[in-house]
Amino acid sequence: MKRIGVLTSGGDAPGMNAAIRGVVRTAFAHKLEVYGIFRGYTGLINDDLKPLTHRSVSNIINRGGTILKTSRCPEFMTKEGQKRAVEILQRNSIDALVVIGGDGSYRGAQILAREWHIPCVGLPGTIDNDLNGTDRTIGSDTAVETALDAIDKIKDTVNSMERIFVVEVMGHHSGYIALKSALAGGAEQVLIPEVKFDIQDICHEITEGYIRGKASWIIVVAEGAIKGMELARQITEITDLETRVVVLGHIQRGGSPTAEDRILGNRLGAAGVELLIKGVSGVAVGVLNDQVHVVDFEEALRPVTFDTKEDLRLIKLLT
Amino acid sequence: MKRIGVLTSGGDAPGMNAAIRGVVRTAFAHKLEVYGIFRGYTGLINDDLKPLTHRSVSNIINRGGTILKTSRCPEFMTKEGQKRAVEILQRNSIDALVVIGGDGSYRGAQILAREWHIPCVGLPGTIDNDLNGTDRTIGSDTAVETALDAIDKIKDTVNSMERIFVVEVMGHHSGYIALKSALAGGAEQVLIPEVKFDIQDICHEITEGYIRGKASWIIVVAEGAIKGMELARQITEITDLETRVVVLGHIQRGGSPTAEDRILGNRLGAAGVELLIKGVSGVAVGVLNDQVHVVDFEEALRPVTFDTKEDLRLIKLLT
Amino acid sequence: MKRIGVLTSGGDAPGMNAAIRGVVRTAFAHKLEVYGIFRGYTGLINDDLKPLTHRSVSNIINRGGTILKTSRCPEFMTKEGQKRAVEILQRNSIDALVVIGGDGSYRGAQILAREWHIPCVGLPGTIDNDLNGTDRTIGSDTAVETALDAIDKIKDTVNSMERIFVVEVMGHHSGYIALKSALAGGAEQVLIPEVKFDIQDICHEITEGYIRGKASWIIVVAEGAIKGMELARQITEITDLETRVVVLGHIQRGGSPTAEDRILGNRLGAAGVELLIKGVSGVAVGVLNDQVHVVDFEEALRPVTFDTKEDLRLIKLLT
Amino acid sequence: MKRIGVLTSGGDAPGMNAAIRGVVRTAFAHKLEVYGIFRGYTGLINDDLKPLTHRSVSNIINRGGTILKTSRCPEFMTKEGQKRAVEILQRNSIDALVVIGGDGSYRGAQILAREWHIPCVGLPGTIDNDLNGTDRTIGSDTAVETALDAIDKIKDTVNSMERIFVVEVMGHHSGYIALKSALAGGAEQVLIPEVKFDIQDICHEITEGYIRGKASWIIVVAEGAIKGMELARQITEITDLETRVVVLGHIQRGGSPTAEDRILGNRLGAAGVELLIKGVSGVAVGVLNDQVHVVDFEEALRPVTFDTKEDLRLIKLLT
Repeated sequence: MKRIGVLTSGGDAPGMNAAIRGVVRTAFAHKLEVYGIFRGYTGLINDDLKPLTHRSVSNIINRGGTILKTSRCPEFMTKEGQKRAVEILQRNSIDALVVIGGDGSYRGAQILAREWHIPCVGLPGTIDNDLNGTDRTIGSDTAVETALDAIDKIKDTVNSMERIFVVEVMGHHSGYIALKSALAGGAEQVLIPEVKFDIQDICHEITEGYIRGKASWIIVVAEGAIKGMELARQITEITDLETRVVVLGHIQRGGSPTAEDRILGNRLGAAGVELLIKGVSGVAVGVLNDQVHVVDFEEALRPVTFDTKEDLRLIKLLT
Repeated sequence: MKRIGVLTSGGDAPGMNAAIRGVVRTAFAHKLEVYGIFRGYTGLINDDLKPLTHRSVSNIINRGGTILKTSRCPEFMTKEGQKRAVEILQRNSIDALVVIGGDGSYRGAQILAREWHIPCVGLPGTIDNDLNGTDRTIGSDTAVETALDAIDKIKDTVNSMERIFVVEVMGHHSGYIALKSALAGGAEQVLIPEVKFDIQDICHEITEGYIRGKASWIIVVAEGAIKGMELARQITEITDLETRVVVLGHIQRGGSPTAEDRILGNRLGAAGVELLIKGVSGVAVGVLNDQVHVVDFEEALRPVTFDTKEDLRLIKLLT
Repeated sequence: MKRIGVLTSGGDAPGMNAAIRGVVRTAFAHKLEVYGIFRGYTGLINDDLKPLTHRSVSNIINRGGTILKTSRCPEFMTKEGQKRAVEILQRNSIDALVVIGGDGSYRGAQILAREWHIPCVGLPGTIDNDLNGTDRTIGSDTAVETALDAIDKIKDTVNSMERIFVVEVMGHHSGYIALKSALAGGAEQVLIPEVKFDIQDICHEITEGYIRGKASWIIVVAEGAIKGMELARQITEITDLETRVVVLGHIQRGGSPTAEDRILGNRLGAAGVELLIKGVSGVAVGVLNDQVHVVDFEEALRPVTFDTKEDLRLIKLLT
Repeated sequence: MKRIGVLTSGGDAPGMNAAIRGVVRTAFAHKLEVYGIFRGYTGLINDDLKPLTHRSVSNIINRGGTILKTSRCPEFMTKEGQKRAVEILQRNSIDALVVIGGDGSYRGAQILAREWHIPCVGLPGTIDNDLNGTDRTIGSDTAVETALDAIDKIKDTVNSMERIFVVEVMGHHSGYIALKSALAGGAEQVLIPEVKFDIQDICHEITEGYIRGKASWIIVVAEGAIKGMELARQITEITDLETRVVVLGHIQRGGSPTAEDRILGNRLGAAGVELLIKGVSGVAVGVLNDQVHVVDFEEALRPVTFDTKEDLRLIKLLT
């Protein structure tokens, strides 16, 4: 093996740059060349790649986003697209691939490894922390901090103004960001896709609280559970109380990564390259109980059995 | 004069606590007592007040919100309400009042001073920077920083993902936060209530850019110009390009105040008390060209002639 | 058991307030009363305590420091002091104690449990992450972020000015903060108390780099390895190159805690009370592999076998 | 005029990149070419320059430091050096120069304009806010925020631990950062180079406070007044009380610039180019009462009559 490629794919996540740095510098330490592939699988299909140097990854460890850019690439899901990608890899003498991203990215890497015999490892880069076989994904810690910062700011004003606030955070299928930020922020209520809820019950609780004199509420809601604007509309309709909405959106993908996300990125980037060198392929690299842990892509893509009970219990207990 | 009252009213703004500290500590330095009135004019009408000590305002200078809480109080706009307020002031032997807030709060103070002969001064506490007779209002600098931080984070992801982003910031009638944060954030476009815009033109520009290869846009919009969700919907409809929306909402009222807002709060709090001691009443205290500046409430409430041209020119010139 | 006491002791750490909140609210959920004891064991000896209410711990989850204040208390290490403490506990009908702090605090709790039969649990509150039986201590994640923020800022200027920078972080016996912040910050070198170093070697490396054109260095040093000022002096003496020093000091103890430290505080606070209710005493509560984990104080106080190798390897590999 | 050069010189300051962006984009809007000169006058002498494009300054507005790097260049103070610089400018067909920096940088530009007839304008880039003819310099607002953030963090721990803290900030001749951050941070005491102080008096005050029960002190000190370590040593010697020291150092030069510093940089960058186009030279561009203001270098280099009295009065009044 002489030359590896690295790409980021899917939604960007803070710490992806640290992972790229980990890949590049580790490869150099092992006398390998590295090509950066731009915009994920789109760049792979379009021959949009270039060699990376030691300096290419200087001063990126602290930056959000990804210097390799990213995209979603439906074309790569076709045989045509894949064939084209493999040709590009061969033409550029790229012997192996490190793919950084979420479940869609892993599916692409899985196909490349299994069906086209391209040595491939995946690194978990997604703010949703929704991949199996790893305790955490690169970017999730930073995203929680960003959501928490918003909740803290809302709290200043909620304590002054006494209203019902709805904070919508990211998470179509995963309540991770909502749950952690709600607990850490001391929010009164959290709604996540994993757990059913009844708006009538919530409104009943709010009304009861209101009668007792509790006029301030922060409700954190994952976008996949219900849209923040819609939730606020329903609460006002039922309780006749004023609500205010914050939609954090893509703010949660940006920002300088936390130490944890940077270290995770560095560590998994290094491990990914070292695994490729050892001839391992078709696996996702993660961290379990603070040890690097490897699972095949199939296992990584199984539904995550994320335990929400303890956090939900604490939120209820401590509010 | 032996005892003064202090209240915060209207939307809360970071730096209000610094202003309260300025009022309390300056009063004590002049051997005056201070009563804190809670929830603005609502607390005044409901006799919700208590003496403040030197320690009451310890360690609040760095906190968002207001320890006196705030509210909007339609009842105070009636003669009945005002009469009741004046009775409460007399019963509690409060000789003069410092009112911290925006235009609504100033209107209340104006009535108290003019019609009920209660010595009153106003301090400009509002994130919108929309009061006349002062270069800046307490809270506006922090609000701009908060909006800017959001734009910076969006920029990380916009550079990685290449999409059209709409960031809705506060400002029903004032484009201050939108304008300053858009300029400082290097946003491509800003929409403010003060300046007419044509969505067709904007979409044309976006489409032209798209053809040239420019795929990333950040559009900052003040809520009073058009709702962010609505703007995004229209852009997608016209250009057929994907958009993403962030609604910052009340986040902009929270957070630890900047040095500038704290110093402004401290300074105007001190000046307000010193003016009352000198027998001045019926005025708003501000800062012009870095000097404390006093105007009567009528003048303060005149429409602000905020110059938007230079900032708009720079945004266009530098993008 | 009807009433428990809670105190913080030793150096303060961000997240202690979250732990206090966890203790108080969990106790209330189980119909227990809680007394807050001020300034650690000093307050216990001096009868400086008062009942805490649900509201006492409102809006403290996001604050650095500890609302109970803290101190170091040599007097408590005497039999006299301990006897006095036990009398105070009995006089105030306090049936059990939650002690939040580091090794010194644990030693005090160990004595109370073992020799005076006061039911006691300890929660790990220290930025140094140097207690056995827990993966992390409350405050260490925030302290690493604070050190990292400083390194990031230094990096801006180091890239512009090209100099040798020494950043001294906390850690008399523990290199945790130094190691994690150096790795996450992309520092060139880290010196920690756990690992011997040779200044001649470091200077040789710097000089060699200088000849190759590498003019910028960031060296992170734990105060227990060598004082930053002294290190800088020696480097300049040997290499004849200019150095600049930052001494972060107690900044690392402050600041709003990270989500991780708040959740850890909440969780261990709740667990501590639930253990006391079950009749458990003489133990430190921690978290291992993301599960609450209990060890007796003796075990907790054993030297930590913190693995520094992997992080040191990564720093070397990736720089 | 067809081509201008831009350089940053002296200590770097946050917002310099915004100024560079302002220069480059404004030049392009006027169909001028721009060359970036690296490491200040050093790069000018060594022919270390290259053309800048529109994209060279993309995504730098939010970054600390300067993409052009900076240095101090004693060689440029010789006739030889200057002659060489002028030759390089001519050889590269650079018709005019924008110099961003502090007093040393202005002196260089003054010589180039006056003695060598190179059209030159200066922009105030220095954290010390110590140039005449402008209310503020680029970088000073960010530096104050950085110092304030440190004081806020110290305050968390000072409230928990009750000790005397000394925070040393930058400022060899200027007390600007110390004064503003001390006022905004609610520090008890500030020592600046502009005002004489007596350590005996300070210690007397501390001891008196200690007897009254005041055990927490934050003293902010500009490095030019007295070194923080030395001050702490003397206080401990005289009062026998423990002290703790923080030396912020170059942290104050880094970090993402505030909105104010970015807008100032943008604005002055644009103004500088527009002045050169109009044929103006030998001047420093600043902002007075929020209007762009131009003074010749001689005037800009006169000692600043920075009014410290009002801030000192407020610190004393409000503590």
